[in-house]
Amino acid sequence: MRLNTPTPETAPEATLEATLAQAKQAFYAMAQLGNDQKTEALEALAEQITTATPLLLAANAKDLAENEGHLDEALYQRLKLDEGKLAQVVAGIRQVAQLPNPCGQLLSRMALDEGLVLEKKTVPLGLIAIIFESRPDVMPQILALILKSGNAVVFKGGSEAKHSNQAFMQHVLAPVQAQLGTLPTGWATLLEDRAQVQAMLAFPQYVDLVIPRGSNELVQHIMAHTRIPVLGHADGVCHLYVHPSANLAQAVAVIEDSKTQYPAACNALETLLVDAAVPAEFWPQLAAMAQRAGIGLRACPHSLSLLPQAQPATEADWTTEYGNLTLAVKVVANQAEAMAHINRYGSHHTDGILAEEAFAQELFLSAVDSASVFANASTRFADGFRFGLGAEIGISTARTHARGPVGLEGLVSTKFYLRGHGQVVSDYSGLHPAKQFTHQVL
Amino acid sequence: MRLNTPTPETAPEATLEATLAQAKQAFYAMAQLGNDQKTEALEALAEQITTATPLLLAANAKDLAENEGHLDEALYQRLKLDEGKLAQVVAGIRQVAQLPNPCGQLLSRMALDEGLVLEKKTVPLGLIAIIFESRPDVMPQILALILKSGNAVVFKGGSEAKHSNQAFMQHVLAPVQAQLGTLPTGWATLLEDRAQVQAMLAFPQYVDLVIPRGSNELVQHIMAHTRIPVLGHADGVCHLYVHPSANLAQAVAVIEDSKTQYPAACNALETLLVDAAVPAEFWPQLAAMAQRAGIGLRACPHSLSLLPQAQPATEADWTTEYGNLTLAVKVVANQAEAMAHINRYGSHHTDGILAEEAFAQELFLSAVDSASVFANASTRFADGFRFGLGAEIGISTARTHARGPVGLEGLVSTKFYLRGHGQVVSDYSGLHPAKQFTHQVL
Repeated sequence: MRLNTPTPETAPEATLEATLAQAKQAFYAMAQLGNDQKTEALEALAEQITTATPLLLAANAKDLAENEGHLDEALYQRLKLDEGKLAQVVAGIRQVAQLPNPCGQLLSRMALDEGLVLEKKTVPLGLIAIIFESRPDVMPQILALILKSGNAVVFKGGSEAKHSNQAFMQHVLAPVQAQLGTLPTGWATLLEDRAQVQAMLAFPQYVDLVIPRGSNELVQHIMAHTRIPVLGHADGVCHLYVHPSANLAQAVAVIEDSKTQYPAACNALETLLVDAAVPAEFWPQLAAMAQRAGIGLRACPHSLSLLPQAQPATEADWTTEYGNLTLAVKVVANQAEAMAHINRYGSHHTDGILAEEAFAQELFLSAVDSASVFANASTRFADGFRFGLGAEIGISTARTHARGPVGLEGLVSTKFYLRGHGQVVSDYSGLHPAKQFTHQVL
Repeated sequence: MRLNTPTPETAPEATLEATLAQAKQAFYAMAQLGNDQKTEALEALAEQITTATPLLLAANAKDLAENEGHLDEALYQRLKLDEGKLAQVVAGIRQVAQLPNPCGQLLSRMALDEGLVLEKKTVPLGLIAIIFESRPDVMPQILALILKSGNAVVFKGGSEAKHSNQAFMQHVLAPVQAQLGTLPTGWATLLEDRAQVQAMLAFPQYVDLVIPRGSNELVQHIMAHTRIPVLGHADGVCHLYVHPSANLAQAVAVIEDSKTQYPAACNALETLLVDAAVPAEFWPQLAAMAQRAGIGLRACPHSLSLLPQAQPATEADWTTEYGNLTLAVKVVANQAEAMAHINRYGSHHTDGILAEEAFAQELFLSAVDSASVFANASTRFADGFRFGLGAEIGISTARTHARGPVGLEGLVSTKFYLRGHGQVVSDYSGLHPAKQFTHQVL
């Protein structure tokens, strides 16, 4: 209990710490919810979004009015809610409700000795911080995933979607909370300003995982300013390598899809590597496709002469995520050079080979050190939904915890349970132990 | 190739970065080793330790001579190598060689559509930094685990064991490296001074995981000074809670073992919580055991009157890892208070309940938020060998990547492999997609 009113300077931090402490307590209660209780809460959430749709759209209209003229068309469309988007959100929440419970999954079971049984199971992960940008329909999706996994969340949406996000808290979350009585106070907390996000990064004792969903700058800033584990990716410099054995028409189609299907996505193609031994007829096909699809080419000295419309590439092009219809092109002497280039300049996100030779495919898949490695498929497949994960938390380029597209399994941890009958370690120790471990897998 | 001699000021950092870059390249080669090649290398390592035993003991004798009088008896014994210890090391390496390959394990396999198959497999994790203290026999164990998991390592041993560690590099690793030809240069690099360890923590682009094995201070320092993921635990404030239904004689035996079997270990008991409803006859049994075992007691006001030999406990006692024969004792009103105390003051390492009632056991195991939760067993069982993991990398109190005692599974990551026939995402997109995902588990 605080007895003195805090000075204005200390108030925000003190309040934030109290908020995080309460959220961590809420996590302990969330972690005890059974799957039936979680399903009931998800159903209530879906139902209440339907009920509150007029209120949500009214709040969203305020956001749209305040941001008219400040956002480009694509961002404006992302910010805009309508009945169709909300119906999709409701359908998505009901799908999450039907997924298997990610918690309580038995990973191993072993008798260490008679009557001494060890189990390893999945458990909720903890208090998770999620920072996302302007799309207001992300928020109910996040609430659904957090609920399903038995965690607690503090989150911050884009300031453009302020009214929409507050409306979800007020008109969806609050009524569900009041109606059910099973969800602990503070299990989902909306932070109001960027300063709180920055301050939160300094509390690893409360926050167990940060998931930034937004621009590269946002993710890089967060990764550089916290000791809390971060699930995400700063860059998506994805490559395709055209092997001499490639089916050329197929290769051009996969390159087109990888670059143009959604150029702003992190799994879009940025650099094309072409083996010097690829037949010469490949180049006019590539040039024609680029022309037709509106792709701007940045070419290495070798390929510059083969692609009439290309600009010269500089060293910086090999590490650039354009996020638009620009494609860097480089001729490599052989597959080894292609793989070394990808491991050196890439962001270990998604990289593919276009080849008919099985040996070349398998060598590439084995030696390229990326979260997702593809043979003869568009890089755009690297996505939680397309990968059949049921729900996507994000795509991780970290090498620990979760890597690649991450579903609910990224929101759980593990715990060892040992059940005995008074066993002590001294019986199993020393030169002539009284007992021996049996380590029998059950 | 460096052409200019670096200035003395820049030399260590520049050299360190070059070392780490080479080690990362070595990782790519290590990751391609087959299990047979790894087994062959492990056998060669074991063989060479036997061959080089006289040289290793001579180097160790230098360490012992230089440290005579500066180390207490326990540390001196840990520093000392002998033929028995080296024979154990050799046996341990041969056991590691026989463990299943932790890499290439198939975790899932799914047809996203016909002829578009996604696999998720375990792969080597990367370049791992390991910092350990004075025991020189740790080093060959680490080399064995790194080799088995297809990783690369930079490590730093305690300065007390300097000659022994160098002898392992010179007389074991170098000859094996020369003999085999399969191990890439730089896959295992011994750092020479503490400044290099500190500097290394600033290179997350090369180092993928840090494993500090040593004092709390070492681990805390590293956790506070790097953005690289850390596998380890700073504290081990472990608890036992005596429930009113406990078998009292059994409870006292488990408490004794948990506290005294190896008091310096991180999984030793530090705080005993006793339910106020535990029968009064428990207290003289506890007092007598403590007296006999030489345990010094720090008691809360309530238990102070029941334990004649106890000193009063202060608030600091609830968060102290004594590492010796001191035990804090606190009476709690009920199980809920015990669980809240553990979640608040504990280090989420290993905590147990002593109870005959199954409901009390299961409630405790579920609600206590620790890496290992036990019913009626000594906390000292929390250990990779006792848990049947085959090898222990360390014990983690992190909630991401690996938690609790960690075996070789803590040294691997995962990778998605997608094999197609030219599929593109645009065929699966839009209002009337040409194709549908089947997401068939194989």
